[in-house]
Amino acid sequence: MTPEEFRAAGHELIDWIADYRSGLSERPVRAQVAPGEVRAALPADPPAEVEPFAALLDDLERVVVPGMTLVQHPMHFGWFPSNASLESVLGDLASSGLGGLGISWESCPALTEVEEVVVDWLRQLTGLSEAWSGTIHDTASTATLTALLAARERASDHAQTRGGLAGAAPLAVYTSEQAHSSVKKAALLAGYGLDHLRAVPCDPVTYAMLPAALAEQVRADLAAGVRPCAVVATTGTTASTAMDPLGEIAGVCAEHEVWLHVDAAMAGAAMLLPERRHLWEGVEQADSLTWNPHKWLGTILDCSLFYVRDVQHLVRVMSTNPSYLRSAEDGQVTQFRDWGIPLGRRFRALKLWFQLRLEGVEAIQARLRRDLANAEWLAEQVRAAAGWELAAPLSLQTLCVRHQPEGLSAEALDEHNRAWAERINRSGAAFLTPAKLGGRWVVRASIGVLGTEREHVARLWELMQEAASA
Amino acid sequence: MTPEEFRAAGHELIDWIADYRSGLSERPVRAQVAPGEVRAALPADPPAEVEPFAALLDDLERVVVPGMTLVQHPMHFGWFPSNASLESVLGDLASSGLGGLGISWESCPALTEVEEVVVDWLRQLTGLSEAWSGTIHDTASTATLTALLAARERASDHAQTRGGLAGAAPLAVYTSEQAHSSVKKAALLAGYGLDHLRAVPCDPVTYAMLPAALAEQVRADLAAGVRPCAVVATTGTTASTAMDPLGEIAGVCAEHEVWLHVDAAMAGAAMLLPERRHLWEGVEQADSLTWNPHKWLGTILDCSLFYVRDVQHLVRVMSTNPSYLRSAEDGQVTQFRDWGIPLGRRFRALKLWFQLRLEGVEAIQARLRRDLANAEWLAEQVRAAAGWELAAPLSLQTLCVRHQPEGLSAEALDEHNRAWAERINRSGAAFLTPAKLGGRWVVRASIGVLGTEREHVARLWELMQEAASA
Repeated sequence: MTPEEFRAAGHELIDWIADYRSGLSERPVRAQVAPGEVRAALPADPPAEVEPFAALLDDLERVVVPGMTLVQHPMHFGWFPSNASLESVLGDLASSGLGGLGISWESCPALTEVEEVVVDWLRQLTGLSEAWSGTIHDTASTATLTALLAARERASDHAQTRGGLAGAAPLAVYTSEQAHSSVKKAALLAGYGLDHLRAVPCDPVTYAMLPAALAEQVRADLAAGVRPCAVVATTGTTASTAMDPLGEIAGVCAEHEVWLHVDAAMAGAAMLLPERRHLWEGVEQADSLTWNPHKWLGTILDCSLFYVRDVQHLVRVMSTNPSYLRSAEDGQVTQFRDWGIPLGRRFRALKLWFQLRLEGVEAIQARLRRDLANAEWLAEQVRAAAGWELAAPLSLQTLCVRHQPEGLSAEALDEHNRAWAERINRSGAAFLTPAKLGGRWVVRASIGVLGTEREHVARLWELMQEAASA
Repeated sequence: MTPEEFRAAGHELIDWIADYRSGLSERPVRAQVAPGEVRAALPADPPAEVEPFAALLDDLERVVVPGMTLVQHPMHFGWFPSNASLESVLGDLASSGLGGLGISWESCPALTEVEEVVVDWLRQLTGLSEAWSGTIHDTASTATLTALLAARERASDHAQTRGGLAGAAPLAVYTSEQAHSSVKKAALLAGYGLDHLRAVPCDPVTYAMLPAALAEQVRADLAAGVRPCAVVATTGTTASTAMDPLGEIAGVCAEHEVWLHVDAAMAGAAMLLPERRHLWEGVEQADSLTWNPHKWLGTILDCSLFYVRDVQHLVRVMSTNPSYLRSAEDGQVTQFRDWGIPLGRRFRALKLWFQLRLEGVEAIQARLRRDLANAEWLAEQVRAAAGWELAAPLSLQTLCVRHQPEGLSAEALDEHNRAWAERINRSGAAFLTPAKLGGRWVVRASIGVLGTEREHVARLWELMQEAASA
């Protein structure tokens, strides 16, 4: 494809995307396909002939869009806000068009240095001290795995450079029973073993980790000859955005040289609001930290920030320096390949750079505050309505709701709540995701799509009441 | 940003990219900046005000482009071809514009199923049997780590579900001394330990792994109580695209139930040519396999294919199933989150889908054959020229070249070769990357940029001769 053919097709695609985004709210929120339906609509064999660009656009409309759950739809309240802001889409297009190759500083100095600058902007905007250095990972899953690898190597005095984990003393990882599934996955992949993964109990009302319970587990492990290695604390748990008390947890960690990693995947964006920063008080005592601009902040996937305090340690764990990647500038520059798992990296900083400059920090803050106010408004309606309850305190923009008509058993109530959510989802009018909390099913309403205004939240509340009484 | 504002800015950006790509060959290949220069050109503080889109375009031109080594430039012969084809740029733009969220089948059925289809197309196009199932990872580094985690868990009967690696018998990983640095990194991160990583010797002429040496190391480990766990064989090594003999290696693996992972990151694209498939004969006996369409095939970063034979095993190692990701379709659909490390995934299949349909398989094959012929032509010039030699046999499109004027010591020859490559790179007229091979520095010329025609290779040869005699 020549640049001129690209120009023509690119204009068509930009128009298609603009039209798609304009018309989003008229489409059903949930994907309208059965398992295998998209696959069946496509040829099983690779294309023999070159196809016109119009055929691709047709397939986007005919096959792809009906097969998508529209997470940018203003009536999307599922999982978490996954906004894919149009500013960041432009930044990502610039990245692709430029075709930068991040395998070393030399291969694309701008890729490295714009990332350094923009990640530092976000450090400042979230009130973190200069002690933190950051980079962009694809997801919090990867960042958490990286943190647990760094913790493993600190506790074992770099066992990977000797015999690895075989024959070493067991190392324990602690996280709350409300932690994201990626924490368990990371601990298992890093080789700690399920036997050494501790689910620390939570407060039954707030669902926040109980520091006293953590301290007790740490003591029990020490007594049993298991070395406490890492705590993963969550500020903003997946189910209910519960806030683990970082300060108290950090105190336990400091006493036993335990690595503290903070998973703020969802809630990190809220730290752009000075009035919310008390929620992660104590974060300065952590060793590593991750949060996802690709959630509520609105940057297009994949964009997860990973900050550490001891860069030298991280680099020692992750570094490679083969002859074919050496250059005269080594030692004077940052090599982000040594801050994570992949060697090759996209120019991901551009999507953040574009978003911050084109949306503007004040507008982002105003939008986050709007979402918090909308969540508070919905919480008030739920609290005031007979038969409804909030199953967890509202700490940010995610509500955990239950409808509790009288006379139903606990199991029947679980069924009832999943059923009314499914009725809404099936209708396509809105989308909500249920989750288990404290052993019971609740329905989560995660507010924060760019286009979600008060009227959409009000409409959701009507739909909830209708569906629950159907 | 409204869809209409996006439309206007998007058209400008498409034009900017088309112009940038058209004018690429008039720019210097290597980045023209010193360490810190890009960073210094940007404000250290986050932007207070919203900026006009023109300011972003200005900064791309003023700050970003001079800070890039232009790996799509027709005179780029460094590292590997990193083409970022314009067809795949459009596919990636579609992905960003659609904003699909891949955390489960339900969150975007099309994301999952288009990926299934396209990855299967590439299976067919590279002559792999139906026994293989694949997915897209970001890079081969991540795919290799995933393979070594799967191998670790197979050899240890899923030790991660018990005590992990602590206290378990040591497991050994074997790879050639020519393997990519990511193999060592993956083995260390997976917890095997450097003491259990074996660098298998290579043939001194072809730089291919010696299966007899592998067999000997396996026997020695068995005798010492170390369990042979995984072999990473490379078809197309980084320095010289050497081809490890998969059939013989697979024989050794089969004898001792050792996992065989094939790293074909660079060379996988060549398997679209039936006449080259003998180079990975034996691949059907491997357990896992990775190659990067984001290299020579030309798909925009990041796009690495990862195929396995035993999907059930992989899923058992990598799966998570928290309540908030469950849906009615579980069990009937593929959950790609359980095929790799990250939970959240972009709609990466679109860039492959667009490229295959818009460039066309025949045109891709013709392009790969053009590059092979250009490499053969350059090899002939080098062989015929006094004082020049090929330091390794040419197996694909990467030449390892040395200029050897008489009377220089081995060290001086190393210096001389690095110096003439640096002279070319500094000039901006072309770009080459030196590497160590067999203990000596050689200069690599990796041919395969989309725009690189015979005339560019001929010009490179002139530059090489001028620079070496300067």
